[in-house]
Amino acid sequence: MALVVQKFGGTSVGDPDRVREVADYIARTRRHGNEVVVVVSAMGKETDELIRLAGQVATTRPGREMDMLITAGERKAMALLTMALHDLGVPADSFTGSQAGFITDTNHTNAKVVAIRPARVSESLAAGRVPVVGGSQGVSTGRDVTFLGRGGSDITAVGLAHALGAEVCELYTDVSGVYTADPRVAPLAQKMKAVSFDELLEMTACGCPKPAMRSVEFARTWQVTLHVRSAFTWEPGTWVMKEDPSMEQAIVSAVVHDTSEAKVTVTGVPDKPGIAARLFRALADRDVNVDMIVQNVSVHGVTDISFTVPHEDLDASRDVVDSLTPELGAIAVEADRDIGRVSLVGAGMKSNPGVAATMFETLAAEGINIEMISTSAIRISCVVREADIERSVQALHRAFGLDGP
Amino acid sequence: MALVVQKFGGTSVGDPDRVREVADYIARTRRHGNEVVVVVSAMGKETDELIRLAGQVATTRPGREMDMLITAGERKAMALLTMALHDLGVPADSFTGSQAGFITDTNHTNAKVVAIRPARVSESLAAGRVPVVGGSQGVSTGRDVTFLGRGGSDITAVGLAHALGAEVCELYTDVSGVYTADPRVAPLAQKMKAVSFDELLEMTACGCPKPAMRSVEFARTWQVTLHVRSAFTWEPGTWVMKEDPSMEQAIVSAVVHDTSEAKVTVTGVPDKPGIAARLFRALADRDVNVDMIVQNVSVHGVTDISFTVPHEDLDASRDVVDSLTPELGAIAVEADRDIGRVSLVGAGMKSNPGVAATMFETLAAEGINIEMISTSAIRISCVVREADIERSVQALHRAFGLDGP
Amino acid sequence: MALVVQKFGGTSVGDPDRVREVADYIARTRRHGNEVVVVVSAMGKETDELIRLAGQVATTRPGREMDMLITAGERKAMALLTMALHDLGVPADSFTGSQAGFITDTNHTNAKVVAIRPARVSESLAAGRVPVVGGSQGVSTGRDVTFLGRGGSDITAVGLAHALGAEVCELYTDVSGVYTADPRVAPLAQKMKAVSFDELLEMTACGCPKPAMRSVEFARTWQVTLHVRSAFTWEPGTWVMKEDPSMEQAIVSAVVHDTSEAKVTVTGVPDKPGIAARLFRALADRDVNVDMIVQNVSVHGVTDISFTVPHEDLDASRDVVDSLTPELGAIAVEADRDIGRVSLVGAGMKSNPGVAATMFETLAAEGINIEMISTSAIRISCVVREADIERSVQALHRAFGLDGP
Amino acid sequence: MALVVQKFGGTSVGDPDRVREVADYIARTRRHGNEVVVVVSAMGKETDELIRLAGQVATTRPGREMDMLITAGERKAMALLTMALHDLGVPADSFTGSQAGFITDTNHTNAKVVAIRPARVSESLAAGRVPVVGGSQGVSTGRDVTFLGRGGSDITAVGLAHALGAEVCELYTDVSGVYTADPRVAPLAQKMKAVSFDELLEMTACGCPKPAMRSVEFARTWQVTLHVRSAFTWEPGTWVMKEDPSMEQAIVSAVVHDTSEAKVTVTGVPDKPGIAARLFRALADRDVNVDMIVQNVSVHGVTDISFTVPHEDLDASRDVVDSLTPELGAIAVEADRDIGRVSLVGAGMKSNPGVAATMFETLAAEGINIEMISTSAIRISCVVREADIERSVQALHRAFGLDGP
Repeated sequence: MALVVQKFGGTSVGDPDRVREVADYIARTRRHGNEVVVVVSAMGKETDELIRLAGQVATTRPGREMDMLITAGERKAMALLTMALHDLGVPADSFTGSQAGFITDTNHTNAKVVAIRPARVSESLAAGRVPVVGGSQGVSTGRDVTFLGRGGSDITAVGLAHALGAEVCELYTDVSGVYTADPRVAPLAQKMKAVSFDELLEMTACGCPKPAMRSVEFARTWQVTLHVRSAFTWEPGTWVMKEDPSMEQAIVSAVVHDTSEAKVTVTGVPDKPGIAARLFRALADRDVNVDMIVQNVSVHGVTDISFTVPHEDLDASRDVVDSLTPELGAIAVEADRDIGRVSLVGAGMKSNPGVAATMFETLAAEGINIEMISTSAIRISCVVREADIERSVQALHRAFGLDGP
Repeated sequence: MALVVQKFGGTSVGDPDRVREVADYIARTRRHGNEVVVVVSAMGKETDELIRLAGQVATTRPGREMDMLITAGERKAMALLTMALHDLGVPADSFTGSQAGFITDTNHTNAKVVAIRPARVSESLAAGRVPVVGGSQGVSTGRDVTFLGRGGSDITAVGLAHALGAEVCELYTDVSGVYTADPRVAPLAQKMKAVSFDELLEMTACGCPKPAMRSVEFARTWQVTLHVRSAFTWEPGTWVMKEDPSMEQAIVSAVVHDTSEAKVTVTGVPDKPGIAARLFRALADRDVNVDMIVQNVSVHGVTDISFTVPHEDLDASRDVVDSLTPELGAIAVEADRDIGRVSLVGAGMKSNPGVAATMFETLAAEGINIEMISTSAIRISCVVREADIERSVQALHRAFGLDGP
Repeated sequence: MALVVQKFGGTSVGDPDRVREVADYIARTRRHGNEVVVVVSAMGKETDELIRLAGQVATTRPGREMDMLITAGERKAMALLTMALHDLGVPADSFTGSQAGFITDTNHTNAKVVAIRPARVSESLAAGRVPVVGGSQGVSTGRDVTFLGRGGSDITAVGLAHALGAEVCELYTDVSGVYTADPRVAPLAQKMKAVSFDELLEMTACGCPKPAMRSVEFARTWQVTLHVRSAFTWEPGTWVMKEDPSMEQAIVSAVVHDTSEAKVTVTGVPDKPGIAARLFRALADRDVNVDMIVQNVSVHGVTDISFTVPHEDLDASRDVVDSLTPELGAIAVEADRDIGRVSLVGAGMKSNPGVAATMFETLAAEGINIEMISTSAIRISCVVREADIERSVQALHRAFGLDGP
Repeated sequence: MALVVQKFGGTSVGDPDRVREVADYIARTRRHGNEVVVVVSAMGKETDELIRLAGQVATTRPGREMDMLITAGERKAMALLTMALHDLGVPADSFTGSQAGFITDTNHTNAKVVAIRPARVSESLAAGRVPVVGGSQGVSTGRDVTFLGRGGSDITAVGLAHALGAEVCELYTDVSGVYTADPRVAPLAQKMKAVSFDELLEMTACGCPKPAMRSVEFARTWQVTLHVRSAFTWEPGTWVMKEDPSMEQAIVSAVVHDTSEAKVTVTGVPDKPGIAARLFRALADRDVNVDMIVQNVSVHGVTDISFTVPHEDLDASRDVVDSLTPELGAIAVEADRDIGRVSLVGAGMKSNPGVAATMFETLAAEGINIEMISTSAIRISCVVREADIERSVQALHRAFGLDGP
C-alpha cells in the first residue's frame, strides 16, 4: 500500500463539477489500494480575484490582512472537496496550513516554511481517513496566518510528501505533462515519460511554462519524486525524478523557446577591469533580471557587451545604461525586442561533444542567424530573430530525432 | 468619549465601493470623538453563495466542514474592511470569532455562544485601534471553527456591546429604520424615532421584516440599546431600547401586516377535554409552526377550531388533521390560503381599553369582515381576507393618527 | 389611470431576491391602478465587471465590441425581471434598446439618442402588458448595438416618459431621496419633499451625489417630472419638477459640500487683457475641468488668479500653469488640496438679498475663514479649509432653519 | 490556404487569461497560412449560472425570455475574444447567431436550425478578417432571439464548416482527444489518432463522454471532418471522419464502459404477441429512455424480459411496470442498480466473426459473469456487475491489443 500526495491546482477544482470529479478520482485511488493525502489550491482564479478585491478597496495592503484574506480561498476549496469525499462515502478531514503543521517565518504574503509538523495529518491517515490540506498556508512563529506565495500549493504538497515519506507527489494540472517542445510550434512534440530534476530546471528556466521552477527546486532539494499530470484527461503524465546513472540518457530531451526577452547591446566600451562589474551591479540594484550575457573579444581596446532581460525590465535597463554611459565611456546603446531564444536541454549532452555543432549547423541550414550563445553542462541556448523562432524549434526538434519514429 | 459597536450587514459591504464608504464612515465616527468596534458580515449574498456551492458538490454536509466553508465569507469582509481603514490612516486589526473570544458549544452551523472573552479586542481598543470582528463566528469548546447561524452577526455585535459595555450597538442595514407601517401599503407611514424591545418583538413576530427577531431578543436579554439605521442614506434611524416608564407611550405605535399564513378550520369537533391537546401535539410533532388559534363556543356539544400556519406548513398540517379526523370525530376540514393578518402594536395599549373596539369599528366601517382575533398585552391581531389587507392597513394607520399631523 | 415609468438602478436589482422584490412592487403599482413601463439597469456592479473583464483581455477596446459586451448586462436584468413578473401572473415583455426604438448616433460607448420610436413598447402597454426595457441601450443609424454611457438608464427612462407622455418618471435607487445636507455631516438633515430642476442641478454641480446631473438635465429639457426614491424602504422620496411660481419658495433649500477639489493660485500676474483667456484656454486644451475662478483687484498693475479643479486634474493643472509662467509673467504658483466648498442652494434666494450676508456672518461666528466666493442666481458657494467643512455645513444648516422645527 | 473553423468551449475561454491564450492561438493559426472562422461558447459555466439565476427569480420561465437571458453569455465571450484579437493586431468582427445567418424554428431554448445564410461571415473573411461567432444562437422565423440548446456551439461550428466549405472543424475542449478507454480505469489507454463517425457514435452512445453525441451526428450528416483536441496542451488530438474503405480497420478500436444504468427484470410474463409492445409503449409514454432489451427463450409459455434504463429513470420505470403487472400477468419485478456495461467498438468487427467469442472468453477467464448481451454491426456490449467493470475494461483492453506495443 503506497502513500501518495495528490495536489490539485485551481483549474482542477475550478467549479463544483470539477470538485466532484476530483473527489471521485481520489476515491478511485484509494480503491486501488493507496493511502492519499490531498493538497488543494483555491478554486479557479480565486486568489487573483481576492488580490483584485484588495486592490479595489485599498492601496495600502498590510501583509497580515492580505494573508487573512487570501487564505479564505483555500479554506473554501478544502472544505468543499472534503464534503464531496464524504458524499462518496470516503471519510476525510480538512486542515488549514496551521492545523497541518506548517510553521513559517513572519514574512507575510510570501512566507518561508521553517518547520513541518504534520501530526494531525498523520493521525487522520492512521484512522483510515483522507486529510485534505489547504495549499500555500501556514502559521507564523508569531501565531498569525501566513501565505506561502503564488504557486505555494506545490510547496505544501512537496513538503508533506517529504515529511510523510510519500512514494510520489502527484501534481494535477490542466496540461498532461512536460513536452519535448511546445505543441503549438512543433506539432510532432511528444509528451515525455520522465525527466530529471536538473533537466526540468533548465527547461523551466528557458521558457517551459509548467510546472513552476520553484516547485521543481523544492522537489530536488527534498528528493521527492513528482508526477506532473492532467486532472482533465487523467492519463499518465511525466515523472520528474533524480537522474538514474544506469539509465540511458537522451542526448537531447527537449527543445525549449522563449520570446519574452529583449536584447541590450552596449558598444564601444573600453576593455578594462571593472567595467562589466559596474554595469551589472547597477542593473542588479534596480532589480533587473539579467539572463544571458555575452562580451565580444576586444578590438583596439574596446569591446561590446550584450545581455538579455525580460521585456518588462527593458525600460529600467535602458535608464541604467544611459545613466552610466559617460562613466562607461560607451559609444552607443541598442535595445532590441524582436529576439527569441531557443534552447536544447539534455542530460546526455555532457558526454556528447558534438551537440552544439549540430545545433549551429541545423540553424545555418535553415538560414537562421545566431546572435548570442550560452551554455550550461546540459543546455545550449541561442538567441535568434523572433521571427525565426518557430522554424528554429521545428528544425531542431526534427534534427535531434524528437519528431518520433 | 463613547464606545460604539457598529455592525455592517452584507448589503452594506456588498462591493469594494461600499467597503470603502463604510471605512470612511467609521473614520468619521472616530473623528467625532468615539471609540468604535466593528462587526462585519460576509459581503453581499456570499453566505448564500457558499451554501449553494456546498449543495452543488455534496448532499451530505458535515457541520465541521460547513462552518470551515461559510466562515471564509466574513474573513474576506473583515480583512478587506481593515485594509480600507488602513488606507484612510485609521489603525485597525481584523479578528476572527475565535480571536475575538467567542466560545461556543459544538453545535455546528448553528452554534450557541457560551462565553465571550474579548481580551484581544480590548487590547486593540486600548491601543487606539479599531477592532474589526468577523460576524457570526466562534470557536467551539472542541477547538473547531463554528458558525452562529444566519443573522448571527447581530449576535456578535450585541454580544460585544454587552461584554465591552458599549453605549449603543448600531445595526447598519439597507433600510433606514422601523416604520409605522409598510410604506408600500401605507404611503404615509413614518419612520419611528424609537421603539421598545417589547413592541419591536411583537412587530417582528407579526410580519415586520427587519431587524431579525432573534437579535431583538438578544438585545433585550442583554439590555443593549440598538440603533437600527441605514448604511446608504446614513440618516438617523430607529432606536430600540428598554421602555422608559416616564416616557409618554403611544397607544398604537405601528400597524403590521402579514400575508404569509393560511388558515385551517376543523368543524364539528366534539367539545370534550383533550381534543385540542391531541391536535396541537400532533402538529408540533410534525414541526408545524402554529400561530393564532381560535375555538368557537360549543353548540350542541360540537365546536370548530381554527388556526393559522405559514403557507409552507399547510400541506403538513392537512396531513396531520386528515389522519386525525376519525379520532377527533370532526366533520370537515377546510384550508384557506387567501387570508392576511393585520396587527396593531403599542405599549400604551395596556392602559387604554378602547383600542380593540376602535380597531373593529374601523374595519367594519370599511366593510371588512374579521375572521379571527388574537391579542397580547400590547398587540391586537385580526385575520381578514388577503384582498382586504391593504385597505385594512391604510384605514387603521389613519384611524390611529399615524398618518401624521 | 396614470402611466408611470419606473427605473430600477443596479443596486435595486442586485441579486435574485431583489429582482423578485422589484417585480412584486411593480405588480403592486399595477394593482393600484397604474400602467407601468419599466427600465432596468444591469444587476449590481455588472457593468463595471464587464469593463474590467475587457481590460483584462485587451488594451485596445473597439467601441463596437465594447457595446456588444456591456449591453449583455441589461439583457440579463431585463429578461430576469420579466420572468419574475410572469411568475407573479403579470404579463410582461422584455425589450432591448433597439426593440424599444432608441435610435442613436454611431458614437460607440457613449452614444447620443437621435430619435425614440417606442412602437413596440406602446403595443405591449396597449395589450395590458408591462414592457421591461433594457436601460442605456440603442441601435445606431449604422445598425450596430450602442450603449448610452454610464448612468444612461436614467436617459432611457426619462426619454420613454417623455415619448409616452407619462405622468411621472420614478428613479428607484439605494437612497430615499434628496436631503437638505449630507446626513453623515448634519445629522438633522431632512429629506426634501420636492426640489426644482434648477435647484437640483445646482446641488449636483456642487457635490450632491445623486441623482446624476446628466439625468436631471434631460428631465428639465424634456419637462419630465421625476420622483427620486428608494427601492429598499419604498417610502415616498423627493419630487423633482418645474418650479411652480405660486409655490412659496424656500430661501435656502439645502446645504451642499464638496471636498474633491483643490485650489490653484497664480500670483503676481500682470493685469492686462488676454492673460486669463490664455490661461484657461490652455487648461481647457488639457481637459482640465475648472470650477470656481476668482481674480483679485489689481494692485500696482498686478493681480492674483485662483481657481479650483478636481483633485485628479491637479497635476495636469500645475503642468499647464508652470509651462505658461514665463509667458504670463507670474511670480508664483501655489496648489492647495486641503480645501472644501460649502454651498447654499435655494430658489427663493433670488428675491432675498440678505442670504449671502447671513452666510458670511454665520461662518465668521464660527471663526471659519472664507477663501473664495462664487454665486449664481440661486446658489452661493464659499471655499474654506477642508478641516472646517463639517462645522460649516452644521452651522449653516442650523442658521437657515433646516435643522427642523 | 485552408479554411478552418475553430470552436472553443466554455472551459477553453474560462477566464481572461484563457481568452488571451486562445486569441494568441488563432493568430498563430493565421500566421501558418490558414483562414479562420471562430465559434465561441459562453465563458466557463456561465450558461449554468444564468439558468440558475432564472431559477432563483422565477419558476415560470418563458422561452423567449430564457433565450434573451442565456444568449448574453456568448455575447460576452465573443466580444471579449474579438477585443483580444484586435489587441494582437488581428482584425476581427463579432457576430451574434442572427448576424451570422442562423435561422431557426420558434422552439425556444432548444431551437432547430432551418437555414444558414452566413453572408456577413463570408464578407468578413473576404476582407481578411476573423469572424467570431457566438455559439448556439439563432434568430427565429418570428424574429426573436433563439438558443440552440446545451452543446449547441458544436452545431454552430459544424453548420458553419458545412456552409462555408471548411476543410476541418476543430473542436477545442479540455481533453486532448478520444481515448481507447477511460485512462482512470485503463492507465495504458491510448489517444486515438482517428475514428470514424460510426464508431464514435457507438462509443458516445455507450458511455464515452466527449464529444457530445449530437455534434457527431451533425458532423456525419453534413460530412464535416472533425478534429477533437485540447485548448490546454494544444497537441494534435483525434480526427473524426468518414470511414475510408482503403484504410485498414482496427478490429476493436476502443473499450467503453458505463455505470449510469440500472437493470429491470420482469419475470413470469406469458409468451404471447403484444406483451412487449404494451410494456415498451408504456415506458416510452413516460419518457423513459430504455437502452438494452433482452427477452429469454420461453419455457412453458412464460418468459422473462430485462431492460436497462438510466438511474434517474428507474423510479418511473418501476411505476410503469408495477401498474402493468396485472395486465401483463407477470410474477415479479426486480430492479438492480449495481450493474455496469462494457462495450467493444470497432469498424473492423463487421468482417471478423470471432470478436464476440474472444470477449466472452476474456471475461470468463477473469471469472466475470455476463448478465445481458447486445450487439450492433460494430459494437458488442455486455452487462456485468458494477464491481467487475474496472477489471472487465482492463482485461479487454489488454486482450484486444490496445495496451500498446
